[in-house]
Amino acid sequence: MSKTKQLRQLINSRKLEFIMEAHNGLSAKIVEEEGFKGIWASGLSISAALGVRDNNEASWTQVVDVLEFMSDATSIPILLDGDTGYGNFNNARRLVKKLEQRGIAGVCIEDKQFPKMNSFINGQFQPLAEIEEFCGKIKAMKDAQTDEDFLVVARVEAFITGRGLDEALRRAEAYRKAGADAVLIHSKRPDITEIEAFMKEWAGRLPVVIVPTKYYLTPTDKFRELGISLAIWANHNLRSSIAAMKQVSRSIYRDESLAQIENKVAPLEEVFRLQGAEELEAAERQYLPAPQFSLNEGM
Amino acid sequence: MSKTKQLRQLINSRKLEFIMEAHNGLSAKIVEEEGFKGIWASGLSISAALGVRDNNEASWTQVVDVLEFMSDATSIPILLDGDTGYGNFNNARRLVKKLEQRGIAGVCIEDKQFPKMNSFINGQFQPLAEIEEFCGKIKAMKDAQTDEDFLVVARVEAFITGRGLDEALRRAEAYRKAGADAVLIHSKRPDITEIEAFMKEWAGRLPVVIVPTKYYLTPTDKFRELGISLAIWANHNLRSSIAAMKQVSRSIYRDESLAQIENKVAPLEEVFRLQGAEELEAAERQYLPAPQFSLNEGM
Amino acid sequence: MSKTKQLRQLINSRKLEFIMEAHNGLSAKIVEEEGFKGIWASGLSISAALGVRDNNEASWTQVVDVLEFMSDATSIPILLDGDTGYGNFNNARRLVKKLEQRGIAGVCIEDKQFPKMNSFINGQFQPLAEIEEFCGKIKAMKDAQTDEDFLVVARVEAFITGRGLDEALRRAEAYRKAGADAVLIHSKRPDITEIEAFMKEWAGRLPVVIVPTKYYLTPTDKFRELGISLAIWANHNLRSSIAAMKQVSRSIYRDESLAQIENKVAPLEEVFRLQGAEELEAAERQYLPAPQFSLNEGM
Amino acid sequence: MSKTKQLRQLINSRKLEFIMEAHNGLSAKIVEEEGFKGIWASGLSISAALGVRDNNEASWTQVVDVLEFMSDATSIPILLDGDTGYGNFNNARRLVKKLEQRGIAGVCIEDKQFPKMNSFINGQFQPLAEIEEFCGKIKAMKDAQTDEDFLVVARVEAFITGRGLDEALRRAEAYRKAGADAVLIHSKRPDITEIEAFMKEWAGRLPVVIVPTKYYLTPTDKFRELGISLAIWANHNLRSSIAAMKQVSRSIYRDESLAQIENKVAPLEEVFRLQGAEELEAAERQYLPAPQFSLNEGM
Repeated sequence: MSKTKQLRQLINSRKLEFIMEAHNGLSAKIVEEEGFKGIWASGLSISAALGVRDNNEASWTQVVDVLEFMSDATSIPILLDGDTGYGNFNNARRLVKKLEQRGIAGVCIEDKQFPKMNSFINGQFQPLAEIEEFCGKIKAMKDAQTDEDFLVVARVEAFITGRGLDEALRRAEAYRKAGADAVLIHSKRPDITEIEAFMKEWAGRLPVVIVPTKYYLTPTDKFRELGISLAIWANHNLRSSIAAMKQVSRSIYRDESLAQIENKVAPLEEVFRLQGAEELEAAERQYLPAPQFSLNEGM
Repeated sequence: MSKTKQLRQLINSRKLEFIMEAHNGLSAKIVEEEGFKGIWASGLSISAALGVRDNNEASWTQVVDVLEFMSDATSIPILLDGDTGYGNFNNARRLVKKLEQRGIAGVCIEDKQFPKMNSFINGQFQPLAEIEEFCGKIKAMKDAQTDEDFLVVARVEAFITGRGLDEALRRAEAYRKAGADAVLIHSKRPDITEIEAFMKEWAGRLPVVIVPTKYYLTPTDKFRELGISLAIWANHNLRSSIAAMKQVSRSIYRDESLAQIENKVAPLEEVFRLQGAEELEAAERQYLPAPQFSLNEGM
Repeated sequence: MSKTKQLRQLINSRKLEFIMEAHNGLSAKIVEEEGFKGIWASGLSISAALGVRDNNEASWTQVVDVLEFMSDATSIPILLDGDTGYGNFNNARRLVKKLEQRGIAGVCIEDKQFPKMNSFINGQFQPLAEIEEFCGKIKAMKDAQTDEDFLVVARVEAFITGRGLDEALRRAEAYRKAGADAVLIHSKRPDITEIEAFMKEWAGRLPVVIVPTKYYLTPTDKFRELGISLAIWANHNLRSSIAAMKQVSRSIYRDESLAQIENKVAPLEEVFRLQGAEELEAAERQYLPAPQFSLNEGM
Repeated sequence: MSKTKQLRQLINSRKLEFIMEAHNGLSAKIVEEEGFKGIWASGLSISAALGVRDNNEASWTQVVDVLEFMSDATSIPILLDGDTGYGNFNNARRLVKKLEQRGIAGVCIEDKQFPKMNSFINGQFQPLAEIEEFCGKIKAMKDAQTDEDFLVVARVEAFITGRGLDEALRRAEAYRKAGADAVLIHSKRPDITEIEAFMKEWAGRLPVVIVPTKYYLTPTDKFRELGISLAIWANHNLRSSIAAMKQVSRSIYRDESLAQIENKVAPLEEVFRLQGAEELEAAERQYLPAPQFSLNEGM
């Protein structure tokens, strides 16, 4: 099944599904191997891994380059955290074409302005996109896709910016009418009250996606009860790798030795396995001339 | 002090120094923060993180793109594991110019052929570069650098390919005469006997670099005793991140919840700190107009 | 019809067809608009336009980036002059996947070694690829393509390197058996004698492609008579643009004025037309909110 | 002299100077060879050559990639037409760092909004950047540069958008106070009246740059009389290449032959010369082993 069909199936299934963050080819492959049915290409994680800020410091083509490696390394669908679409409707529809080419199954865009401002200064005063402008962007993206299963998810930032339930509903409904395939309702509260309020009024008009990074203590069954379609575990591979790399770097620096850590890290063979060394060995046997064994070369 | 001067100082100091592997901007920053004086931009780790094999599957400019993010994120010198220089002398000297531009302090090239063949099929029959051709490459690289402190390290693969001590010495001496600033003697034995034999004959003609991945149990004082200049911890940040990501992905997949892992991964604030969010907040205050507080926008 | 089908049809038609060189999105669009059925993405022209030499100084991904712009700007098929496939069989089969993704319809690879050496020093002593190795490369490329119509053309350099008819035939036949879809017989003679000799012996075993840059005085009907399938006009857009830019730069430099040249260059409106400005204007009307006319903004 | 010093000297010389458009490495080299002291990296030309529109369809890093080839191919300074800086102050200051790395000598930013809207729909109603926001951008860029000679030119679009002289002067003065090194006053009138009015009031507070594309019939001595520092011939290499390529493509398509055009285009040898083939030949002699003449290889 195509990656786009796989993702559409996830979002349209009658039960709660999960996708897991990745930020490069390696983490994407791990997400697939551990059993997940989809990958969240997190803007925060990708920028952090690159070493820049999540404020459109990496260009959109640099993000697409990362996605291409991720897609090439995996066979499950990738949903991109596409910020605002990196500009206006024209940038956003170009993005759709480039994502389709790279085998990305869908993109989530948020109703903010380019470039993203830091959410931690005056977060609640951040300007949102005008509804009409954002709806035009959604339409342009839907018109640009050539694979009918490609997914456009509209992320509603009304709660994040302190604008409340009515604004959230008004926007979600407008985005639905503009053609969005799903809405992502974001909340930074430590509990699920905002999401719950939304779900009751929304009444299943479109599938709903959530990112429970801040309300991680809410039991997952609660998501099911509310009728959430997709939960995104949004940045935990990145955060686990930070903790691990800090620890191993600290330990090696202090000990001036690898002896204590060799058994705590993945074996070298596991690196090769993840890279697909075996396939290349087989291909070398198939496509390269037989090696010329020469006795005078160091045997 | 310039990054190139820092690296030259490391290699020329009279004592054993250490550099630690990184493979993207994030890991590079962690290496610096944990106290290391330099970074090893590992070809294996960079390719693995991208999701491809260490056989020149990523193009040389894709590697340079990764290096640019690494260099921008840090203030300590980076030594690139530059494979064979990605072609002949002309490709290698172009590489030097591009590395200098990106603030990379040095590059290590190995005396094999492009593209790298898999070291695990008939490893000992792998063809080496012709000595004269490899010396021409070193000369071209040294002639191409514009910063006199930029470092070219010649990696001798004679032991790896089973060609023995005489060949290792013959090659190291030729590379020294061609202008290399240091030699890297590689060995895949679980003990240090090959390196030891080399060091005795070599007698300090140039600084020597080692990669003790396979002989990690050899006490570090032994390296000092032999007069090694620089030891490279070559791939352990990558390997620690693999172990961590597998574990956290597995745990979240199984639990369908973040509750158990929130305290085991780096906090979100640590991600923002590593990205330098604080500098941007300050810069927004300095360079952006004061926010227009508007009463009808959700306050 | 897909671009790959279009190209396959060109190569398999019973009559002589022509494709014309382009080296960026603009020239590709001009080739299409002037009526050609296909585009030759010349390695020489692309490298020259970039400002580097045709010796694999641009990385293969930099070439792919150029191709993506060319493909996006046009609807006729592009055949890439793919040098040696940029490495061994593994690089070449990766290339095929990336070309397919970008909508490139086929690639021509030549039986030389990476990186290309300058053809003007000891041209006739240049080493060719080993036949067995090159056949493995062709097989790997054919196995890698997912679109059955994607074309792999094997370019035979036997005449170019002074090795004669027998070697040319031996190689062409081996490449045919390995799965090549067509052979390109290259000759640098000012007449068509080498090609003619080849065609007589070859007897139509596979379609034959030629590049009459050096024997440009040979009447085109001669190509028809010999049963050539495809002739490539290989670098004349680039060369015409060089002549034109030198002339206009010289004239403006001398006159310190545009007055004399305005009518000799394409009007600005033609630039906008070629860029597709009209489609964007229409899209802005469709997707952007109606402009807010504000009386105090300069009316 | 560094490229930045060269450009600063051009802008600060007491006489009228000229720079000429280029859009890739090849055209840049031609501009230098024909005698110009500087290069205008035109946003319109670069986008048109790539095959996209001048509405930020190419990402800013794709533009930087083009600039890198241009800078590598030349030794005279390049001034980039940097649109709006590709986002806010943070994007613009990142751009400065990347330009410095690539050897670009300066950048011109315009007081519009990202992404650029089409100037031909309601051109006079296009929103300009807020003055305070644009001044913050200029300050951030000047603070970001590490080479004190790097040039930031502020382009005033007040005339273009129909806002008149007072607004043009008010903006130019604000940009000067914010730290701009020069102002570019743009006009789309077929005569020089707007520029003339500006120059009289401006009274030399900062060097002034103009782009006489539309008022090309105005005698150049008039620019001198008004005290203009730098005139940009903004897109004529591109436009000459379009005319030439259309003509040659049309001719070859019609004739199915190269015979009529061989003498009208640059000889192949001129392509090689522009690429610097000679330097590589010399380098091959210096750095490659002497060729192994082998009697059985086709002699």
